[in-house]
Amino acid sequence: MVEKKKVLVIGSNSFSGIDFIDLLLEEGKYEVIGVSRSQEKPDFFLTYKRHPNENYSFYQIDLNKDLDRFATLIEKERPEYVVNFAALVEVGPSWDSPQDWFMTNAVAVTSLAKLLSQFSFIKKYVHTSTPEVYGSCEDKITENAPLNPSTPYAASKAAGDLSLFTFFKNYNLPICLVRSTNVYGRGQSLFKIVPRVALYLKMGKKIPLHGGGKAVKSYIHIRDISKGELSIMLDGKSGEIYHLSPDGEGIAICDLIKMICDKLNIKFDDAVDIVGERLGQDKAYVIDSSKARSSFDWKPVISLEEGVSDVIDWVSENYEEMTSQSLEYNHKL
Amino acid sequence: MVEKKKVLVIGSNSFSGIDFIDLLLEEGKYEVIGVSRSQEKPDFFLTYKRHPNENYSFYQIDLNKDLDRFATLIEKERPEYVVNFAALVEVGPSWDSPQDWFMTNAVAVTSLAKLLSQFSFIKKYVHTSTPEVYGSCEDKITENAPLNPSTPYAASKAAGDLSLFTFFKNYNLPICLVRSTNVYGRGQSLFKIVPRVALYLKMGKKIPLHGGGKAVKSYIHIRDISKGELSIMLDGKSGEIYHLSPDGEGIAICDLIKMICDKLNIKFDDAVDIVGERLGQDKAYVIDSSKARSSFDWKPVISLEEGVSDVIDWVSENYEEMTSQSLEYNHKL
Repeated sequence: MVEKKKVLVIGSNSFSGIDFIDLLLEEGKYEVIGVSRSQEKPDFFLTYKRHPNENYSFYQIDLNKDLDRFATLIEKERPEYVVNFAALVEVGPSWDSPQDWFMTNAVAVTSLAKLLSQFSFIKKYVHTSTPEVYGSCEDKITENAPLNPSTPYAASKAAGDLSLFTFFKNYNLPICLVRSTNVYGRGQSLFKIVPRVALYLKMGKKIPLHGGGKAVKSYIHIRDISKGELSIMLDGKSGEIYHLSPDGEGIAICDLIKMICDKLNIKFDDAVDIVGERLGQDKAYVIDSSKARSSFDWKPVISLEEGVSDVIDWVSENYEEMTSQSLEYNHKL
Repeated sequence: MVEKKKVLVIGSNSFSGIDFIDLLLEEGKYEVIGVSRSQEKPDFFLTYKRHPNENYSFYQIDLNKDLDRFATLIEKERPEYVVNFAALVEVGPSWDSPQDWFMTNAVAVTSLAKLLSQFSFIKKYVHTSTPEVYGSCEDKITENAPLNPSTPYAASKAAGDLSLFTFFKNYNLPICLVRSTNVYGRGQSLFKIVPRVALYLKMGKKIPLHGGGKAVKSYIHIRDISKGELSIMLDGKSGEIYHLSPDGEGIAICDLIKMICDKLNIKFDDAVDIVGERLGQDKAYVIDSSKARSSFDWKPVISLEEGVSDVIDWVSENYEEMTSQSLEYNHKL
C-alpha cells in the first residue's frame, strides 16, 4: 500500500477549498487536513462529505489571530503540501473596510509565509490569487502582465502576492500562485451569481443587475479549476504564476442570467432590476491560460451549459435548506 | 498680505519630513502642521528649528493606533496639502517582523487614504514611495516599470502604493507618488550610512561592510529631494508617479565610504570589516528622473562631495550629543 500524501488546505470552508478537498479525497491518494477560521458549513455545501471521513480532519483556526496554534498543527502534521484558499474575496465591501482586506490578504499571508519558510518538509505552497490584480483587462493577458488593481480587494491580493515572492526569492519557499477566472458550481456560496440567480428566480425575487450586466466575465467550473490546482501542486515550478481559464472570450453577466432564466423558463425582463455600476468594477477578466495548458496535461472540460444546469439541480435539491440561509454576503472578522 | 497655504506633514520626525518642513518654512509661504507617532527629536536633528515657530505646530499621533484623533485634527485644520513621509523604512529588520511593515506601510496607508478621500479641501496628497518596489534595477528605469520587490519592506511599500491608486481611480483622491533614490544630509538618522560612517570614523570604530560594499546606490542630497517634492505638491498631476534622482550612475557603497575616509584623512582598509551580503539586497537602484525634470523646473544641484562635507561638518559640530545617541536602528511599534 502506497502511503498517502498529506495536504493541508487553508480556507477549507471556501467553495474552492471544499471542491479541492473533494477532488483530493476522490483521488484516494491523499490525507487531507482542513483549516478554516469558521466552523464547518452546513452539509449541503460540503461536497466532500460524500467520502468516508477517515482521510479528512478539520481544525477551526483563524490565521489572523492564532498563528501559533497553526504553527503547532503544521509542526505535528508535517504536510508535504499546503494549499491556501483563505482570503477576503468580496469586492464591494472592501471599500467599506479596506484595512480588513489588507489584514487578511496581505498581513496574515506575510506572517504565514514567514512561518512556512522554516519548514523544509513542505514541497509546495500553492496560493490562490486573482486576475483582479491586473485591473481591467482588454486583451488576453499572460502571467507577466503588470499589477494594476482597481479595488482594495484586488490591491490587497496583489500585496499578498508580492510579499510571497520575497519569501521565494530569499528563502526558496516553494510557492506557486494560481489566478483563475470566476468559478461556479455545486456547493458555492449562495450570494454568488449562479446559485443566487437560480435561487432568486425560484423564489420569485428580482435580480439587481449592476450596470445592466454588461461586464464580461469568464466563468469556469470549479472542478476544472481544482484539477488545475492539483497539477500545479504536484508539478508546478516554484516561483511561478499559473492562470486557469476557460476557452472562449467570457460571457456578459446579462447573458449568463439569460441562460439561467431560459433553463428555468422565466423571462429575463421580468427577472432583473437594472442598478448602478459598482465602484471599481473592472470591465473584463479574460486571461490566457496557455502556460498551464502546456505545462500540465490540463484543460477545462465542463461546459458552462452543463455546469450551470448542475448548479440549478443542486439548488432544486436543497431549496428548503437554502432559503433558510442568508443570501447576502456577511463580513465576518 | 497673501494668506499662507496650510500643509500637513505626516512623518514630521523623519529625516525627509524634517527637511521638507525646513524648506516650507524657509519659503515663508506656508503654515505647517507636523504629525509623528514619536515625540520631536533632539534639536540637533530638527533643522527647521532655526525658523520662528509661529508657522509650525506639532502633534504626536500614531496613525496605526489613533486615526480618529488624526481625523479630528484634519477636519479642524483643513490643510490644502498633505505630504506623507511616515513609513517603516529599514530593510533588514523587515525580515524579522514583516507583518509590522505591512501594518504601517500598507494597512495604515489604506485607512488614511479612505479618510482623506472624504475631504474635498485637499488639493494634493503627496506620498513617498521607494524605487525598491522595482527590485533590482539593471538599467535606468522609468515610472512605468513593473513592481518586483525583493524584501518585505519593499513589498509593503508597493502594497501601499497599489492601495492608494485604487482611491485615486475610484474617489479621485489627488495623489502623487514620489520615488527617490537614497537621500543623505544634515539631520539624517545616525544609523544611516553617511552620518554613521563619519561618526564611526571619528570614534575609531570599524564599519561593517556588507558584501564588500559593492552594491551601487544612487545618493541625492535631501534638499534637492525636498525641492522636487515641493514642485510635485504644487504642480504634480494627480495619479502620477515621479522619480527624483541625481545625475550619474550612482556610487558603490565602498567608494562612498572611501570618499568620507579621504575627507577625514583615514585609510579605508583600516576603517572597514567585510561581512556577509544582506538578504534580498538589490544590486542597484538607478532610476530615471526625466519625467520630473521635464514636468517641473527641477534638477538636483548639490554635488555628493559638497553634501557629504556638510554632513561631516554637522557631525563634528554635534559630536558630543551624537555619541550619547543610539547609533543602531530601533524597531518601535
